[in-house]
This record gives sequence, C-alpha cells and structure tokens, in this order.
Amino acid sequence: MLESTLRDRVKDLLTPSGRSDVPPFMVMDVMAAAARIEAAGGHVIHMEVGQPAAPAPKVAIAAAHAALDAARIDYTSALGMPTLRTRIARHYRDTCGCTVDPERIVITTGSSGGFILAFLSMFEPGDRVAVTVPGYPPYRHILTALGCEPVLIETSSAARHALTGEALLAAHRNAPLKGVLVGSPANPTGTMMSREALTGLINAAEGAGIRFISDEIYHGLDYAFPAVTAAELSSHALVINSFSKYFCMTGWRVGWMVVPEPLVRPIERLQQNLSISVPTLSQIAAEAAFEGREEMEAIKRGYQENRRILIEGLPKAGLTKFLPADGAFYLYADVSDFTSDSFEFAGRMLEKAHVAATPGVDFDPIHGRSFIRFSYARSADEMREAVTRIARWLGHGSGLS
Amino acid sequence: MLESTLRDRVKDLLTPSGRSDVPPFMVMDVMAAAARIEAAGGHVIHMEVGQPAAPAPKVAIAAAHAALDAARIDYTSALGMPTLRTRIARHYRDTCGCTVDPERIVITTGSSGGFILAFLSMFEPGDRVAVTVPGYPPYRHILTALGCEPVLIETSSAARHALTGEALLAAHRNAPLKGVLVGSPANPTGTMMSREALTGLINAAEGAGIRFISDEIYHGLDYAFPAVTAAELSSHALVINSFSKYFCMTGWRVGWMVVPEPLVRPIERLQQNLSISVPTLSQIAAEAAFEGREEMEAIKRGYQENRRILIEGLPKAGLTKFLPADGAFYLYADVSDFTSDSFEFAGRMLEKAHVAATPGVDFDPIHGRSFIRFSYARSADEMREAVTRIARWLGHGSGLS
Repeated sequence: MLESTLRDRVKDLLTPSGRSDVPPFMVMDVMAAAARIEAAGGHVIHMEVGQPAAPAPKVAIAAAHAALDAARIDYTSALGMPTLRTRIARHYRDTCGCTVDPERIVITTGSSGGFILAFLSMFEPGDRVAVTVPGYPPYRHILTALGCEPVLIETSSAARHALTGEALLAAHRNAPLKGVLVGSPANPTGTMMSREALTGLINAAEGAGIRFISDEIYHGLDYAFPAVTAAELSSHALVINSFSKYFCMTGWRVGWMVVPEPLVRPIERLQQNLSISVPTLSQIAAEAAFEGREEMEAIKRGYQENRRILIEGLPKAGLTKFLPADGAFYLYADVSDFTSDSFEFAGRMLEKAHVAATPGVDFDPIHGRSFIRFSYARSADEMREAVTRIARWLGHGSGLS
Repeated sequence: MLESTLRDRVKDLLTPSGRSDVPPFMVMDVMAAAARIEAAGGHVIHMEVGQPAAPAPKVAIAAAHAALDAARIDYTSALGMPTLRTRIARHYRDTCGCTVDPERIVITTGSSGGFILAFLSMFEPGDRVAVTVPGYPPYRHILTALGCEPVLIETSSAARHALTGEALLAAHRNAPLKGVLVGSPANPTGTMMSREALTGLINAAEGAGIRFISDEIYHGLDYAFPAVTAAELSSHALVINSFSKYFCMTGWRVGWMVVPEPLVRPIERLQQNLSISVPTLSQIAAEAAFEGREEMEAIKRGYQENRRILIEGLPKAGLTKFLPADGAFYLYADVSDFTSDSFEFAGRMLEKAHVAATPGVDFDPIHGRSFIRFSYARSADEMREAVTRIARWLGHGSGLS
C-alpha cells in the first residue's frame, strides 16, 4: 500500500504534462537520416529546411561587430529598441506608403516569440482560433500549448489555398471563433492572397468579431505580385513578421509585430515577464539590415531563378502536380500518384536520390500524406542537380538532356 | 440594436485577454523618473536594475566576432548546440563533482525561456505551484499567464527567507501543490539555502509528489558559503540557470536547464514549436564564456567589496534593517521606519538623493511596501557615493566622515 503510494508519487514527479504532448516535426527524422547519409560520405541536397542559404546582410554583420566592440550587450526595453521600432515604421512608409505608429511596433524573439505574445494577449484558454491546413505546424501547436483550440479549415489547391470569408464564417457559425491566423505568402504552399482576397477576409473576420492575425514572415519574397500587409488594411489586425527569411537572419531570433493599440501595454507587460527583452545584438543587426536591401534583392533574384528551374524541371522529372508558388521559397507537390505515405516517399527519395524534402504530414494532419514540400532557398546548381536526381530516380531521366 | 452589436464586435476585437492582465514592474516607473533626472543633467546612481555593470567575458566576445566572420548564423537544434550542452555538463563536473548527462541539459532563451518550458512541460492549467515571497515577480506572472495558480508562501527575515519543508507541506495540506520553485541565492533578498536546508526541502517536496524547480541564476555569486545545485541532490529536480548574471550576459538571452530525463523529449518538442531554437551567436559566446572564469572571478570580487561597503555603510547612513546578503548582488532593506509606502520612498530617494532602487512591491504583494531592493552590481566608487548621498538625505551625514 505504502509502496504503491510512493510509486505513484514518483510517477507524479516524472510524467510530462498533457499540454506538452505536441507532435514532433517529422522533418527532424528526415534531417537525421540525411546526416547519416552525409556521415557515410554521401552528398545530400537539402530542400527540407525553411532556411535561406545566404548569411545576414553585410551591414547587419558589421553592425554586430561594432556593437560587440563598443558596449555591454544589455537588456533593452521590453518592447524593443526605440530606434529599431522607428526604423520598422519607416519600412512600412517606404514599402507600402502606410503610416504605422512606432508605438504599435513590438520587437519579438523571432516570429515564434510574436505568436506567443499574440495568442496570450488576444485569447483566453478554450478560445477557438481558425488556422488553415496545410499550414505552419507551430500555429496549431503553440495554440494548443497555450490552452486555445486550433480550428483547422481545409484549403484546396483549386482555390490556391486561399481562405475565404465564406469558409471562415461557416466555421464561425458552427461554433464561435475568437480569431483567425493566415499566412501570405504561405508555408508550405508558397501561395499568396491578393489585395482583394485579403481585404475581403479581414472584413468578414472583423465584422463577425473575429480577431485577425496576419503572418507576414515571407513578405519581401513575392514573385507573382506584390504582397499586401494587413497593417495597411486594418488597425485592428495583428501583423507578425521576422528578419529570418527576407533578411536571412534565422539564428538571430528577431522579429516584430504591428499590434492594435489597446494590446501594446498588455503585450509590454507580458514581454517584461516572459522574456525581459529580445536579444540585443540581434536588434542592433536587424536595424542595420534594412540598409542591406540591395544585397537581399540579389538573393531574392536567386530564389526566382530556383523557382523557375523547379517549375520547369520537376514536371519533366515526373512531379507534375504543384502550384506555381507565388512567393516564399517553397513548392508543395502532390505525390499521391507515387505513394499514399509522403513520409515514406520522402525517406525513399532521400535514400535513393539523396534529395531531402519535408513530408506534408508536418503541415497537414488531414491530407499531408499526399504531399511533400521542397524548399528552394539554396543555389541554382543544387536545384538543377535535384531535378536531375529526382528524374533519374523516378525513371524520367531522358526528359532532361 | 445593430449599432450596439457592431460596437460589441469592435470591443471584442480590442479588449486584451484576461490572462494578459499581469502587473507591470513598478521599477519601470523608477527607471523612467531616473531617465528624466539624467536628461535634466542630474547624475543618478543606478541600484535598481539587476544587471551587471561589466560586459561579457573577453573570450565570449571574441568567439562572437569569429562566428560572425566564419559562417551563417543558422538555427541550431531545439535543445541547443551539442558542444554547449557538453560544456555545461563539464561545468557541473568541475564545480560540484557531479555527473550530469549532457542529454538532460537544455539550452534556453535566457532563464525566462526556461521558466516557460518548465511550467508548460510540468504543469497542467489550474495546477497550484508554490513560490516564496518576497521573490522574483515573473515567477508568479508567468505561472498565471500559463494558467497555473501561484501559491505564495511568505518567508521571514528571521528565517533568512528560507522555505522549509514544514511550510511547504502545510500549504500542500491546505490544497494540493503540484510544484514548488525556489531561488538560492535569492532575488531580492540575496539569501541562500544551506546544503542541509535545500536537501530537506527537496526531500519533503518529492516525498509528497511535488515537483521541485531550482532557480540557480545567481550561482557563482556566493559569498557566505558555496551554493549547492539541486542537480546534485535529485535527478527529479528541474534546474534553471543562465549566463546573464555570473557571466554578465544579460542582453544575450541565453541560459540552460537540467531537466529530469522524462521531460527531455516533451521539452524538445515544445521548444521546436515555441522558439525553433535559441539565439545562435549567444550560444557560441556562452560556450566560450566558461574559459573567461578568471575575468568573472575578478568581477565577483568587486561585488564582494560592494557588499562590504553597503553592509558597513548603510547602517551609518540610517538604513539598519537588512540581512547581510549571502549571494547574488542584492540587499533588501526594511524601510518601514521611514515609510508605509516603499514606492513613494524610492521615488523620494531618487528625487532627493539621486539614488535609484527598486520598491519591494515588485517582489512582495503582501509586505513589499516596507522594503526596497538595492542592486550592487556597479563600481565600488558608486557604492560609496550612494551611501554618502543616502546618509546626507536621511540626515545621518556626520556618521560617515
């Protein structure tokens, strides 16, 4: 009796919480398998990670060097360095001609830190928040960890994966939604919403009292048409952005939000308590990064070339079903002609063709077994080689000569 | 009718969540007032911020420079760079002779990131978690934001602010506790738990199925006797630490945890989703920092001298009621002979003596109005000057000549 009580108590000490039971990323298994192939001397083309191959802008690195030499790397204000907040406001003026009060700009520890602050400040435990599938997995998992209920709304490739006001309101009628989160350009599909589509969706959401969150981390990487910021369309929308993608600053962990005015103080207090402040050196480098746009535009032109190589090459290699991505650096290919298990397919492609990609199951618990995501953020030579290898593996080699 | 519905919907869009309603830090008002005095040409001695005056070790800064020149600053593994995790394990072997499996070491975005991961992985919403008052305010506020209930257990200066197993179990009998969080050296009191006291408390907690969290951010800064890590006493305890204090790396936002083995995977998945990874440059600098111990020991000797100056000087200046802090860089003084409102007292001391300190209300919602916290992480000259100014202000100037 006593012993079983003791066992129970030790079990109590050792059992993880229910809310920490979020799924792992399947891509991690792909990455581990890729590392094993490379350790054995193989050469893998990495198209599985959503990470630019280029480093941060030279001016950003120079600013970090200078800051290291000049001063202590202290805490900053919880909302971020005032000069960086002002610089970001100028960025909106320069790129979309819209006026955003620097007081509404909050610096965050990557877009990840932004999601946590946004969800905590906007939603109560139990609140239902709509996200689209396929979509970025942490949307769902952070919501769950923070006690909210992610409501998955399926989008179709026929509708270019755009969420419509009608689909949103249908879900809202089913059971009330408190928020909706949309990314454009989107991960994993690379699709974008037009100005009209975004305006319509925001109006539908806000008219129904549903808070709108716009993930704009891939802004700047738009090829089909210019991306539109929700900050231009509504002062009630919350915008999340980051220096990770366009500015190639993933490991620096620095991003920003544009938040509705009534959320500024609550978010400031949350950030004081949850983070104290955002990495200082990263903030200094980020501010300088805006002066490195020329360098970044050259990198963007590289992505455009990669996109062209894949859009032309993959169909010849046998992969014909994908949308010509509008932005970001992803292609989301339907591989259901080859497999009913994209995880298995990705594993086999890695094993046989030494091309690593991400199985769709990470992005879509419903239909993800039919898809894989290719990231094209590396060199054009690697893209050409990837197409050649996939063609050879799928037996379409002749089409490539 | 329609209009009122529309108003309600806009209100829905604009109202912050209840859980974001955490109190601000009162010290922010002190800092703002100090900035105003400085802007007007005044010279303020800053004893309000818990931040070292020294920069990171030279070797850490050199490592950051080298990393900036060598490579992209990419994401790392969610649990942190393997070499850093191994280096921290070696640190435990070197300092306490205890073996900690590097697999149990998790790199975090400052200790702040550690608290979020610890609370999410250990506790369910509604769980009661004991914290001592006075104590670090984010303990309470992060718990609240994540849906847990902080249970405040008062400690007394008579008992050197140590939490005892008896007090913990009394609170547990009242209503079951799922966890307890203790810091030693403590903020704001600077008091430390002896090996015996810490062992007793951990045994009492774990014997009752209460998870033990040890905040060891001020380890290394121990003057009265060597601090003992909970990692040495229990493999079920969760240890939180950081490079911010001993290694003077506040703005770098890098820390670590030692976690019970069953929590490693859940925490890895949480960190993948909530943060992706910890700032890379900070991890690289942190690993190098361990080679800068000689430099840090010299800084520690400076704190010891500061502590001596205050312990000898403050009583002559009129502030007699405080404990001779064992560690960290704080003194927590009872000012109830002068005021019933320490916030007002801190404001007056800043205005009249140009010495900034933190009102106790930030640390203790119960008795904080009787206390102020002095941070002594700056130069000895400033400490002497602070004592002189306070003495003059309180009319005890003659005692100082």
